[in-house]
Amino acid sequence: MSTSAQPTKIKVGIVGATGYTGVELLRLLAQHPHAEITAVTSRQESGMPVADMFPSLRGHVDAVFKTPDEAALDQCDVVFFATPHGVAMKEAQQLVDKGVKIIDLAADFRLQDTALFEKWYKMPHACPDILKESVYGLVEIHREKIAQARVVGNPGCYPVTVLLGTAPLWSPEKALVEARVVADCKSGVSGAGRKAAVGSLFSEASDNFKAYGVAGHRHHPEISAQLKALNGGKDVHLTFVPHLVPMIRGMFSTLYLRILPEAMGTDFQALYEQFYANEYFVDVMPAGAVPETRSVRASNKIRIALQRHDDQLIVMVAQDNLVKGASGQAVQNMNLMFNLPEQTGLEHVAILP
Amino acid sequence: MSTSAQPTKIKVGIVGATGYTGVELLRLLAQHPHAEITAVTSRQESGMPVADMFPSLRGHVDAVFKTPDEAALDQCDVVFFATPHGVAMKEAQQLVDKGVKIIDLAADFRLQDTALFEKWYKMPHACPDILKESVYGLVEIHREKIAQARVVGNPGCYPVTVLLGTAPLWSPEKALVEARVVADCKSGVSGAGRKAAVGSLFSEASDNFKAYGVAGHRHHPEISAQLKALNGGKDVHLTFVPHLVPMIRGMFSTLYLRILPEAMGTDFQALYEQFYANEYFVDVMPAGAVPETRSVRASNKIRIALQRHDDQLIVMVAQDNLVKGASGQAVQNMNLMFNLPEQTGLEHVAILP
Amino acid sequence: MSTSAQPTKIKVGIVGATGYTGVELLRLLAQHPHAEITAVTSRQESGMPVADMFPSLRGHVDAVFKTPDEAALDQCDVVFFATPHGVAMKEAQQLVDKGVKIIDLAADFRLQDTALFEKWYKMPHACPDILKESVYGLVEIHREKIAQARVVGNPGCYPVTVLLGTAPLWSPEKALVEARVVADCKSGVSGAGRKAAVGSLFSEASDNFKAYGVAGHRHHPEISAQLKALNGGKDVHLTFVPHLVPMIRGMFSTLYLRILPEAMGTDFQALYEQFYANEYFVDVMPAGAVPETRSVRASNKIRIALQRHDDQLIVMVAQDNLVKGASGQAVQNMNLMFNLPEQTGLEHVAILP
Amino acid sequence: MSTSAQPTKIKVGIVGATGYTGVELLRLLAQHPHAEITAVTSRQESGMPVADMFPSLRGHVDAVFKTPDEAALDQCDVVFFATPHGVAMKEAQQLVDKGVKIIDLAADFRLQDTALFEKWYKMPHACPDILKESVYGLVEIHREKIAQARVVGNPGCYPVTVLLGTAPLWSPEKALVEARVVADCKSGVSGAGRKAAVGSLFSEASDNFKAYGVAGHRHHPEISAQLKALNGGKDVHLTFVPHLVPMIRGMFSTLYLRILPEAMGTDFQALYEQFYANEYFVDVMPAGAVPETRSVRASNKIRIALQRHDDQLIVMVAQDNLVKGASGQAVQNMNLMFNLPEQTGLEHVAILP
Repeated sequence: MSTSAQPTKIKVGIVGATGYTGVELLRLLAQHPHAEITAVTSRQESGMPVADMFPSLRGHVDAVFKTPDEAALDQCDVVFFATPHGVAMKEAQQLVDKGVKIIDLAADFRLQDTALFEKWYKMPHACPDILKESVYGLVEIHREKIAQARVVGNPGCYPVTVLLGTAPLWSPEKALVEARVVADCKSGVSGAGRKAAVGSLFSEASDNFKAYGVAGHRHHPEISAQLKALNGGKDVHLTFVPHLVPMIRGMFSTLYLRILPEAMGTDFQALYEQFYANEYFVDVMPAGAVPETRSVRASNKIRIALQRHDDQLIVMVAQDNLVKGASGQAVQNMNLMFNLPEQTGLEHVAILP
Repeated sequence: MSTSAQPTKIKVGIVGATGYTGVELLRLLAQHPHAEITAVTSRQESGMPVADMFPSLRGHVDAVFKTPDEAALDQCDVVFFATPHGVAMKEAQQLVDKGVKIIDLAADFRLQDTALFEKWYKMPHACPDILKESVYGLVEIHREKIAQARVVGNPGCYPVTVLLGTAPLWSPEKALVEARVVADCKSGVSGAGRKAAVGSLFSEASDNFKAYGVAGHRHHPEISAQLKALNGGKDVHLTFVPHLVPMIRGMFSTLYLRILPEAMGTDFQALYEQFYANEYFVDVMPAGAVPETRSVRASNKIRIALQRHDDQLIVMVAQDNLVKGASGQAVQNMNLMFNLPEQTGLEHVAILP
Repeated sequence: MSTSAQPTKIKVGIVGATGYTGVELLRLLAQHPHAEITAVTSRQESGMPVADMFPSLRGHVDAVFKTPDEAALDQCDVVFFATPHGVAMKEAQQLVDKGVKIIDLAADFRLQDTALFEKWYKMPHACPDILKESVYGLVEIHREKIAQARVVGNPGCYPVTVLLGTAPLWSPEKALVEARVVADCKSGVSGAGRKAAVGSLFSEASDNFKAYGVAGHRHHPEISAQLKALNGGKDVHLTFVPHLVPMIRGMFSTLYLRILPEAMGTDFQALYEQFYANEYFVDVMPAGAVPETRSVRASNKIRIALQRHDDQLIVMVAQDNLVKGASGQAVQNMNLMFNLPEQTGLEHVAILP
Repeated sequence: MSTSAQPTKIKVGIVGATGYTGVELLRLLAQHPHAEITAVTSRQESGMPVADMFPSLRGHVDAVFKTPDEAALDQCDVVFFATPHGVAMKEAQQLVDKGVKIIDLAADFRLQDTALFEKWYKMPHACPDILKESVYGLVEIHREKIAQARVVGNPGCYPVTVLLGTAPLWSPEKALVEARVVADCKSGVSGAGRKAAVGSLFSEASDNFKAYGVAGHRHHPEISAQLKALNGGKDVHLTFVPHLVPMIRGMFSTLYLRILPEAMGTDFQALYEQFYANEYFVDVMPAGAVPETRSVRASNKIRIALQRHDDQLIVMVAQDNLVKGASGQAVQNMNLMFNLPEQTGLEHVAILP
């Protein structure tokens, strides 16, 4: 465990902790050596002990759900929004004014382009100024900016896999692959959240496999915008097909790219290993290996493996959608924003079997 | 396949076919040689082709959901109610008056005692007279009455297992066991129906096991009343603990009874085999065997096995909760009510694996 | 149900019926109106009633496992080989000589090129002459030849999805797409068979998702050879990545192709609908729909849907790997070889939920 | 996290770490602040890095599997045996002689009666003397003895639930319940271990529920012997029916006891709360609550709830079979044997969802 001279703990608030990213934040923060959960809000469940809703937390979390008003969020050091899209942006200004940092796990600060946000999320953006200063919270790509940020937009789960899965390829010096990605992505059902919906019922999702959102998924513009940035401002054509897997946690993305004729000699395995050599949470697996989602279950690691078939490059990426794809990533952002070693409280070994 | 002189097909209506017992009725009736689905109602989905909601029926069912008014239910020969409790009893009188037979898959005609009904279902009974003439639709116990019935109350899923699992024991001549049953019952999640509810979400129910309804489940009074009838009018003390299993279909009940000292010499295996010798749908397994739910998946069979440990009798019962525990049982009732061989359209082999 | 003037039933033998394709053949044939199971072999289980191993068959199948010698296979009209690769080819000559037709569910008659067979299956081919006359049993493509065949090589499960999923595209008149397919395929665990293997354990495969066989899968040469044939003898570059889904049955393939500039105006939806207009088992879903594996669970249907994103064509295909992907396909072949209506005994509605 | 003055870490050896209790030990010990994994043995996998077999450990465990000979187990402070029954008893004497403590996760030191051991495990006991001094490692019952023990027999998974689930009832002063327990127990599939066996295949165990071992399970004599000890040396009649649940981890036991007439006034809820008031790992849930296995997934907690129906007492117990039911319990024993706070390295919050 990392030790640190931090004399006091970070006071943490969580807004909307009744969903899966919320309870995952609670799990991680309850075991974080330098964080203290001081406010947990839910309008609907106000007054209920958090551990009554999530008995896994019995004996670990004493907090009681409060309404946002009672919760004194402005006395926190940082507030996580584990809320539906559109909530954080309404509260951001007043919290920022009080010096409270914000990490939003929804989409309010993921798309810098307000027009794009409004198109995909069907609502006007409530705080374009703060949006402008906010940082896209993918640590391995934007580490320096995040460390300085007051407001971080935590990435969507799918984008993490596609972006980290292709980041080493967008060489500024020399194009290695066509600027075109086919992302065949598979997610566990917890990605749909804890809201009552027929499509997420056990009897609908179990023993079944399907694609969804093929005609257009909200993560498409997010991935596209970030790919473009990674590619030096040049567009990358993205085909993105999400699928639903009958498992609770886990995300697996199979990415298909075409190697350019002039780059056929590239050692992609070496390229990836070098690119991620110093990243604690990114595991480039040895040549020939294939990741599986359970190898990262309940862990903040993301594992990447490469395969090549002639000029076709195949990148396989596995993460836990609720950890590296959401709440673990958010805590990693927090660590950075409070000058803690990045892996603090995030070193849990994956649960296998 | 059974053949019959029936010149015309039975005209069948299904009220509330958007749930799991509804789609299972549609599956069975679409393949039934002597039934014709002539009306399928759903207020909410009126106008939608049934096969759009349930793509498994594409190419097999052409019906379109209609409102109850449009559906001309009174021109059916029989109407199945696959509705929430309290619907069938409001429609029963007018259908019966038109000569339409009724099979209710909800609880409206399961409890003969209206006070008991009102206590457990929190609503007054709308047609006590029809209730009086209605028959409890457990074929193996009430075959003759069902054949004559105008209104049948299809049994609850748990009751089928406990009643068929103990029926041979309630000898009128000689008591064999204490009048006391511990029923430890386990159900797949489809038993909770197709309504959006957090507790039935994949991410809640998968990879999990729990008891529920321990303090009181609506099937308790139903089982108790039927056990008393089986036991010659004498009360049978029932402890009933239902559990939720992370599987879609299937119900397994483990029943514990104590053999009376004077009955210690009984050959219970022979007793059961004899009792069910002529029942097509009840399979008394050989001594030493143990049933499993997949051996009846999507089939109308119910399998029973016995084990004995000193004076403790252990009865294990497996059925598909949506077939023998609901829609298959209902079709079996229909066959009887229309003078067809009982197994007509119900001979499907279980799906394994 | 189809009726037929067939005075007698087809006498069927099944070699190696202890695996999943075997028990699925037993399920389908036990309910087939014109088939009679006369021999079921297993060296290891000789003497055991089939229904003792597969209790789902209790009351439906009376056969007892026999050794191949006892089983008098040469008195059958047709013998299915549900065996490991390499068994059928050793028995084929003597059965064919006696006038027995053969349907092999393994790979012995899938690859016409013996060198290719030997490379991928690590054994010499035992009957190259019979291989030459054998037919690849994908009915929708080779219907006429199958009807005349003495020996049919039933296709691999993955190939069925890729071949039927792209068949309409390989227009002889005009190229519509690049001769290049990315096939991102997902299979339920039953595809690995019923052999004891750590990787197929519940505790390994459940709540997990992974790719496998990325470096080279035996279905690759099979698909490639058939694609080439469909494409008028011109090679089609294939990238094939199989994945393992935590479900028992079901296969879902997402196929990615690039539309050629000169074919951008093509109405692919209409093309597919027309191509498969008369195919009972192939369901081209309406525009915008997405298939799911449970919509074909335990059924012989295969459902296809199309999506398009600029010049990227996305074809989604769902089947039950044990039915249309194996045993159902085999029975469809048998029907054809014995001049029965193709859908005889294969009209079961899918099991949902 | 507990801190301690321990200047050096406990040197730990694990014999047979290729199974599920082995990898769970590795997970727990890799994160244990006062343990150091110094030897991991496997005859078969000798030379392979542990993290190659279990990629969840990549980046956390550097050890390589060694043969027992190479592993220098005698230089460990403690050796865990995560082996089949019969291995530890052969190695115990020589390790004990070198001052190495032993914790056996198999059954070699669970039954004090060698005749009983030989009857149920079909082998003579190899070290009856060490068996005599060994302690049954159920911490909440035998804490003092364990702290002094050189050899601990870690309890079976089912016994933990039945023993902790009934321990408060066996009052030395006054009998509260009949000396008779019906234990209806349900286990996740990981309880069957990581060995290749058809019955544990995904396609066999998924979407299925069954009883097994009804005629006699090896945990029966273990539970009986311990119940007798708890009951002041008086026999307790045990009916024990284990069932297999389609989930990886988790065990749920529903225990049925009859309250004696003279004890009908007892407040059992208060009795349990008091009995376990100081136990960190035993959670007596509030009246009316019902445990579920996921509330302890990957955690060392065991949760108990009570329900009463007339004179019938129902005790529901949930644990993770691989943690409190095996490897967590083993580490808890280690902590005690090395004078560490009991919860050291065992405070992980359960994974939900």
